[in-house]
Amino acid sequence: MKEDGIGSGQIIRRKDDGALEYQRDDLTVEEPLEIRVGTKTLAITMRTPGHDEELAAGFLLSEGIVIARDKIAQFSRPAEASNRENIVAVHLADGVKVKLGSAKRFGTISSSCGICGKESIAAIRQNFPPIASTKGVRIDIETLLSLPPLLRKLQGEFARTGGIHAAGIFDLGGEPKVVREDIGRHNAVDKTIGRAFLDDQLPLDRHLLLVSGRASFEIMQKALSAGIPIVASISAPSTLAMEFARESNQTLIGFLRPPSFNLYSHVDRVKLSD
Amino acid sequence: MKEDGIGSGQIIRRKDDGALEYQRDDLTVEEPLEIRVGTKTLAITMRTPGHDEELAAGFLLSEGIVIARDKIAQFSRPAEASNRENIVAVHLADGVKVKLGSAKRFGTISSSCGICGKESIAAIRQNFPPIASTKGVRIDIETLLSLPPLLRKLQGEFARTGGIHAAGIFDLGGEPKVVREDIGRHNAVDKTIGRAFLDDQLPLDRHLLLVSGRASFEIMQKALSAGIPIVASISAPSTLAMEFARESNQTLIGFLRPPSFNLYSHVDRVKLSD
Repeated sequence: MKEDGIGSGQIIRRKDDGALEYQRDDLTVEEPLEIRVGTKTLAITMRTPGHDEELAAGFLLSEGIVIARDKIAQFSRPAEASNRENIVAVHLADGVKVKLGSAKRFGTISSSCGICGKESIAAIRQNFPPIASTKGVRIDIETLLSLPPLLRKLQGEFARTGGIHAAGIFDLGGEPKVVREDIGRHNAVDKTIGRAFLDDQLPLDRHLLLVSGRASFEIMQKALSAGIPIVASISAPSTLAMEFARESNQTLIGFLRPPSFNLYSHVDRVKLSD
Repeated sequence: MKEDGIGSGQIIRRKDDGALEYQRDDLTVEEPLEIRVGTKTLAITMRTPGHDEELAAGFLLSEGIVIARDKIAQFSRPAEASNRENIVAVHLADGVKVKLGSAKRFGTISSSCGICGKESIAAIRQNFPPIASTKGVRIDIETLLSLPPLLRKLQGEFARTGGIHAAGIFDLGGEPKVVREDIGRHNAVDKTIGRAFLDDQLPLDRHLLLVSGRASFEIMQKALSAGIPIVASISAPSTLAMEFARESNQTLIGFLRPPSFNLYSHVDRVKLSD
């Protein structure tokens, strides 16, 4: 027993019948990650360790800092740092320069929100072009309804901790392409699009992004940066997410809880009837 | 009908029986808020409009920028700005200066995460002192279990939109002191502690903070900045939240879903037996 009344790694659980028991603390890991470009600190985000390179790549993409795959040469962990597992450095290809200044940034920003470091409210939007015509890009209702249980099944950590978000990219037939988990909604999305970005598979113009949490405008913007035309959320979207989707030619689906869901924009990409 | 297949303010709902119907889009409002100190932009956060002054005050407090009530003179909306409803300026009392530089900040930061703009990972913690001895500060299990349904009852917006977070400060008898809603978990907490801060009621050393979402380390830190010894979350805490709570002499309760809950630290403040 320690000073706080429970031992290290222990918690007390009050069960439904009122009985108390000691349990192990199976919690979602939350640690800071510092993202560097070369030796310069670009962002610090609270994330669940793992897939840090994908997170960094997805963040650079969705912030409009690096949008071509061949501009990234490699990643490293700084050898000199004592907390090197919480730092990832992105090394750009020879001759590549990124204009952090012109992106209205000041020093560090956070990947958990994507709007930090912006000089003004007008600078929040990254100005990615809207989704181009996606004729024939449509998803069946049955396929759509199959995705939430599939995402949950592919989430290893959620079953253990009950406290982690997921994002998944699926093709129009409902096949998963990449699924990632993170304590932060935005980080989970950065990891999924970062993986596809590093595999040089953008634009994902025949794919759907499914997120376990809410759809804010930044989730829509991250999807847009990867060219994803359909975004589905198991929870609620915001007003700004809907406005952004309508302007960006993105289909936004909310409260995707089979057998029901809501359609907020560009409804033609969901086959509502045969 | 507009280009996206539905009219402005409309969505399509697929109901449980498979029928489709048009509905109004009752969504949680998400808009940016720029927080200024005087004329200088300090932070931009995505928030649900309302209680902006409380949000700004709670943010300044929990970031350790202004921790004494009398240092804040007043708030204003800049008269010249076209988007003035999305800007709030904090005016400090005569002679008061805040050291943004010494707080390791660069330009804008975000209140939605609280870790942006920090120079290094070591600078993330704000170094508030741990909760001092709180002898006699204990809560009954029955009172604790009464709080989640009470918070939900006091949440006007959730019932309408299903997509908004809440934070509430309660006394040890379970009486609500202040409850606020926001699309962002951190903002909801900033608004609640900001209200108490502006009313000069800190430290809240005989109170409990209840949050509708997860408990990350930043939620614990914000509670600590207001001197709150007990934090309860309806969802999961993170590893870092638990470590922070143990170090800060805070009681952390997670998965508070009556009749069960988990205790992660300093369990003596919950009356587990008579």
